[in-house]
Amino acid sequence: TLAAPAIAQSNPKVTWRLASSFPKSLSDTIFGGALTLSKYVSEVTDGNFQIQVFAAGEIVPALQVADAVTAGTIEAAHTVCYYFWGKDPTWALGSAVPFSLNARGINAWHYQGGGIDLFNEFLGTQGIVGFPSGNTGVQMGGWFRKEINTVADLQGLKFRVGGFAGKVLERLGVVPQQLAGGDIYPALEKGTIDAAEFVGPFDDEKLGFVKVAPFYYYPGWWEGGPTVHSLFNKAKFEELPKQYQSVLKVACQAADANMLSAYDWLNTAALKRLVAAGAQLRPFSPEIMSASFDAANQTYAEIEAGNATFKKTWESIKAFRKDYYLNMQVAEYNYDTFMMVQQRGGKL
Amino acid sequence: TLAAPAIAQSNPKVTWRLASSFPKSLSDTIFGGALTLSKYVSEVTDGNFQIQVFAAGEIVPALQVADAVTAGTIEAAHTVCYYFWGKDPTWALGSAVPFSLNARGINAWHYQGGGIDLFNEFLGTQGIVGFPSGNTGVQMGGWFRKEINTVADLQGLKFRVGGFAGKVLERLGVVPQQLAGGDIYPALEKGTIDAAEFVGPFDDEKLGFVKVAPFYYYPGWWEGGPTVHSLFNKAKFEELPKQYQSVLKVACQAADANMLSAYDWLNTAALKRLVAAGAQLRPFSPEIMSASFDAANQTYAEIEAGNATFKKTWESIKAFRKDYYLNMQVAEYNYDTFMMVQQRGGKL
Repeated sequence: TLAAPAIAQSNPKVTWRLASSFPKSLSDTIFGGALTLSKYVSEVTDGNFQIQVFAAGEIVPALQVADAVTAGTIEAAHTVCYYFWGKDPTWALGSAVPFSLNARGINAWHYQGGGIDLFNEFLGTQGIVGFPSGNTGVQMGGWFRKEINTVADLQGLKFRVGGFAGKVLERLGVVPQQLAGGDIYPALEKGTIDAAEFVGPFDDEKLGFVKVAPFYYYPGWWEGGPTVHSLFNKAKFEELPKQYQSVLKVACQAADANMLSAYDWLNTAALKRLVAAGAQLRPFSPEIMSASFDAANQTYAEIEAGNATFKKTWESIKAFRKDYYLNMQVAEYNYDTFMMVQQRGGKL
Repeated sequence: TLAAPAIAQSNPKVTWRLASSFPKSLSDTIFGGALTLSKYVSEVTDGNFQIQVFAAGEIVPALQVADAVTAGTIEAAHTVCYYFWGKDPTWALGSAVPFSLNARGINAWHYQGGGIDLFNEFLGTQGIVGFPSGNTGVQMGGWFRKEINTVADLQGLKFRVGGFAGKVLERLGVVPQQLAGGDIYPALEKGTIDAAEFVGPFDDEKLGFVKVAPFYYYPGWWEGGPTVHSLFNKAKFEELPKQYQSVLKVACQAADANMLSAYDWLNTAALKRLVAAGAQLRPFSPEIMSASFDAANQTYAEIEAGNATFKKTWESIKAFRKDYYLNMQVAEYNYDTFMMVQQRGGKL
């Protein structure tokens, strides 16, 4: 038989379906990350590798996208892996867990510290290959109807908060609530819940929380730098030509950086608008922060005792975390502090 | 004539030459950024678009790479644009100027705030198209033979420091020195110069400064988040198929993120080694920081009075800088501060 000419082997036609865990309303930020990925992949393959992006619920419910990738009913998902912590808490480590690394730190761990490979050891057991492809930066702690100052104020507090953080907050008396995005506002308005966290200024603004729960707390210590992942069915990924595997990796890394820059740009303006609309910015008190840190560490100790994969992965992150937050105290922190003092002084 | 089949239009064979401004000794970091770009471009085009990377001086001297791209003697360069501030200070704005944005901030401006387009308006006048493709994070302030505490201590100080920062420091009495990398160590050892700045812990460690000038000052306020650029000859870039133009853009954005993660990973370990080797970490005093900030603002005012392109670009950065450092004071700064306090307390 005649060998195909070399040129015909490049850029074969491939069409994949990607299910996002996010709604189209977030197309400038977290949902938009999948659109960016799809655009990059198409452009660098001259339109030959198409990834069709579907919003949450269009073809797969938001929280079932990983299962659908495992099953191979879709080739790809765009999601935050902590959604699946209930299946195995190791899922959460690839995205964010309380008091973990910030965005630059988790990127250093993923891309330079072997994090991508280590997390893929776990994802491989689920029939998945995954790459970081977005980050929100440190999220906000959420919108509260009343001020909270002490751990006593957390007792019985009905707080709409994600899974792993909820598990930690339960130790402090919080009653975590699971509500879909659209149900949060009416629940806050009626007082069915006392507080709700979502993402950060730009995304939160769309849901109008400022009108019914004006105390806007920070930081979201359970999401110091959450990585958004693109997940691919492992068998389908491995069937791709090496070129297309590289296309996905490079496009994911570019989309990862792009999302963080989008949040940094958009949150900057949104925070000012929210304050003008009546948001009352409040830091979590040192008492609450310290109690939360201790509760998180107790949770980790319990999980590590019974889950070797979690332990191996978390210990890898922790080993870097310790030194990362030392190095960041020097040039980065002092530069930022000086600039923030100038900002406060009206000198910028 | 017969139309060529569509498939033959994808991935044509292209070979370009890229001259770096950096030496091979920095192949893990800033020189390595060009290798990363070349690798990404090759992989996503199935090996058909090759960028040959040459270290500083191999085919073009370090500080002449932009001129060589303008002339078209090479297609590409990998450099820091502030090297060319002497031709026009607008060059420096695309990379870093004193008291500008940190890495995340300048990325937000470049990728979301129209910075890439605005800077390319200027680069276009030089026959160049450029994209961000690396960042070092906040650099260190450099190695000093003696402690400096006041502005008076800067009088007559012979400091090896880059161009634009040198212009600002001259106002405070510093005598800026221009020395190639390999000449710095002997000059510091003999006392021909009093101090020298280079990059940050990992890159600086290779040059051994800790042995002859142990006071390691921070932050490098003249480089809060310097962008490393890939510059392309504009006519050659525009002759590329749209696919390859996209390949360069996407690969540059991925390489940009990759370099910052490399610095964050490598500096973390290097700082500890340097302290163990005798480095004495010292913050610049508030007096020196404030005087430097004022001197920088005087410099900007002078340049803006006579350079409309500089003014337009700097005003765009400054408008974002003011609000960026407000937003960053909330979730990001408080999260980092809490984590650093835990680090200091031995709790990480």
